[in-house]
Amino acid sequence: MAGPVSPLAPAAFPALPEIAGLRFASLAAGVRYANRTDVMLAELAEGSAVAGVFTRSSTRSAPVRDCEAKIGTQTSRAAFLVNSGNSNAFTGAAGERSVAEICAAVAQATGIDADRVYTSSTGVIGEPLPHERIVAKLGELNAALDPSGIEGAARAIMTTDTFPKGATETVEIGGREVKIVGIAKGSGMIAPDMATMLVYIFTDAKHDQPALQSLLREITDRTFNCITVDSDTSTSDTLLMAATGASGVDATGNSDFAAGLERVMLDLAHQVVRDGEGATKFVEIRVTGAASDADARKVAMATANSPLVKTAIAGEDPNWGRVVMAVGKSGAEADRDRLSIRFGDLLVAEKGWVSPSYSEEKAAAYMKGDEIVIAVDLGLGTGEAVAWTCDLTHRYIEINADYRS
Amino acid sequence: MAGPVSPLAPAAFPALPEIAGLRFASLAAGVRYANRTDVMLAELAEGSAVAGVFTRSSTRSAPVRDCEAKIGTQTSRAAFLVNSGNSNAFTGAAGERSVAEICAAVAQATGIDADRVYTSSTGVIGEPLPHERIVAKLGELNAALDPSGIEGAARAIMTTDTFPKGATETVEIGGREVKIVGIAKGSGMIAPDMATMLVYIFTDAKHDQPALQSLLREITDRTFNCITVDSDTSTSDTLLMAATGASGVDATGNSDFAAGLERVMLDLAHQVVRDGEGATKFVEIRVTGAASDADARKVAMATANSPLVKTAIAGEDPNWGRVVMAVGKSGAEADRDRLSIRFGDLLVAEKGWVSPSYSEEKAAAYMKGDEIVIAVDLGLGTGEAVAWTCDLTHRYIEINADYRS
Repeated sequence: MAGPVSPLAPAAFPALPEIAGLRFASLAAGVRYANRTDVMLAELAEGSAVAGVFTRSSTRSAPVRDCEAKIGTQTSRAAFLVNSGNSNAFTGAAGERSVAEICAAVAQATGIDADRVYTSSTGVIGEPLPHERIVAKLGELNAALDPSGIEGAARAIMTTDTFPKGATETVEIGGREVKIVGIAKGSGMIAPDMATMLVYIFTDAKHDQPALQSLLREITDRTFNCITVDSDTSTSDTLLMAATGASGVDATGNSDFAAGLERVMLDLAHQVVRDGEGATKFVEIRVTGAASDADARKVAMATANSPLVKTAIAGEDPNWGRVVMAVGKSGAEADRDRLSIRFGDLLVAEKGWVSPSYSEEKAAAYMKGDEIVIAVDLGLGTGEAVAWTCDLTHRYIEINADYRS
Repeated sequence: MAGPVSPLAPAAFPALPEIAGLRFASLAAGVRYANRTDVMLAELAEGSAVAGVFTRSSTRSAPVRDCEAKIGTQTSRAAFLVNSGNSNAFTGAAGERSVAEICAAVAQATGIDADRVYTSSTGVIGEPLPHERIVAKLGELNAALDPSGIEGAARAIMTTDTFPKGATETVEIGGREVKIVGIAKGSGMIAPDMATMLVYIFTDAKHDQPALQSLLREITDRTFNCITVDSDTSTSDTLLMAATGASGVDATGNSDFAAGLERVMLDLAHQVVRDGEGATKFVEIRVTGAASDADARKVAMATANSPLVKTAIAGEDPNWGRVVMAVGKSGAEADRDRLSIRFGDLLVAEKGWVSPSYSEEKAAAYMKGDEIVIAVDLGLGTGEAVAWTCDLTHRYIEINADYRS
């Protein structure tokens, strides 16, 4: 059921530099489909710190629960093992056994302690994970580990993503460079499954683990937690980050490093939206003037998740009335007469009504672009937030309703 | 843009009895479209109590705010004046003036105090309501008032509803009969507008106003507040009820009356879902075994609003994995290993995994019906809730994205 590449895809996969202390391998284990790579292994050298942020779903998968339990402050060798094709979610006690089997096999092949093996699975839900197919390939995976293997890894974790997702930044700290690279998969589906997002970020910087964990969570709230394709939450969402320390440069507390990391995470988050199911428009919702940041976020997410706003955008309709509706339902404090709405630079509505300067013709022309900015100012305070989403099109229905797996 | 009648529509508009103390008129005022009735007037006799429940949207319309302010404990003559074609929402101070003009004109034509005139408007948002077209017709409307005019009224308030909605019950109190009738419009759209729901209920019973207000709010929570088509909330939602008292029978505190009223409200709520945009399946989500009723409601609404659940139902796919996802994201307390899911009578999942008795073939056959019941038991406590929704189809996208107004 692979469809055409998203019209919002970047021109090419970026050139990602090698990270000292990090090697990758990927191959086809036949987890679900033949003739595609579906397993990747990342090996992290001695001294690596690992941090992670995970879905809060109460029905999250066995690998997610295992990863959560393993995040700790130690710095040592570690491995990430990821498969596509099967999410090992809602698979009962068998799911936990599969995770344990895979971790033991990675430990045996690599010599890395099983407590430092982090696994993710993405794909069909509720079917037993054929972990023996992965276990059988671990010797081969270990032998194939290569510092330049990251693009292959980005491809191996795809499900119905229409393009592999990567991003990188280089940051100077005290005259020395450290590198950050990241890969992600997301918003593709395998019917009958839900969207899932997996993200892996690596740096050769040295970083205190508890500080890295805090930083990762904080930036996640401004990046991955600000995107939505269809308001549904995966049982598998996983973001893992490793700092190998191999550059010898300590980035703990460095603001340039934090800014570089945020750019990588934002870039990957936007790529997930750009590969949103059926997406033809990339949409930014900017909210300012709210009574609080929390209120601003309510308005941003209510607008970004509104099927009526998203179908209007698909129809290239500058339907500001639906934005008014979304503000109204958000639960945030709002005053009709202080609210203003802009589509791009066009002032659409203000003072409780359509703006005297509003031109339907200009607004309709603006909506034909493939990057849409909707700005809402509530006129009440200094709270602000941003959310990114895509439009809701026939292709979304096709992907999620028209096919049976 | 009128489409075909919903496949889930009732066979015919029900025969609604006349209510003593109540007369209707409807006609074409050309508010937005030609050649259709678009204004209705309901006149309530001396002694009528009026109660109302309204949208909580912070951007609710001028008529909604006016109605809210007028609900009071007095019993006297009253009027409901409703137009379709324009919602008079987000129309600034001009919107408030339009409401005042209409109320004054109704008062002049009928002799009813303007403070007892309740108006509703449904249709396009953000455009000035041409109230003078309605005002010009008030003499004619008043002259046309007729005890048998309710079906005409139900048709006049339709926007893109594909069928008019009515319901009735007769209740015996102390050996004497009282009647309840209701009409509703909902889930139709006028592009570029949002879904709106308007409901008017009448009885010839006598009823204490504060008690009627409490009863109406309580039953609304179990009926209209348990339905969702697309999770978007209207700026115009209005439920008005009048008790004329003309039967001379006091229904205050009578449980049979309350039960009859609930049946009327539930029937109308279900009809709104059956006319949901693009609906081909009527879906009931039953949640039991939650830690609390509030938790059960979270699960029911998260499931009923999930685009992935709704597209799976459109695709006749017994995709219980998406139900697990919705439970997980709902925010309610849940334990994977205690959760069970049924589609109709078919046990699908239990104890954290697919049920040993599950048959994909039987489940797929069940999904071909046009009434689907999904039951989720959380296995934790006694909390329960129910929600009603419809599937999410290509027709929804067509209605909301493919046409420009």
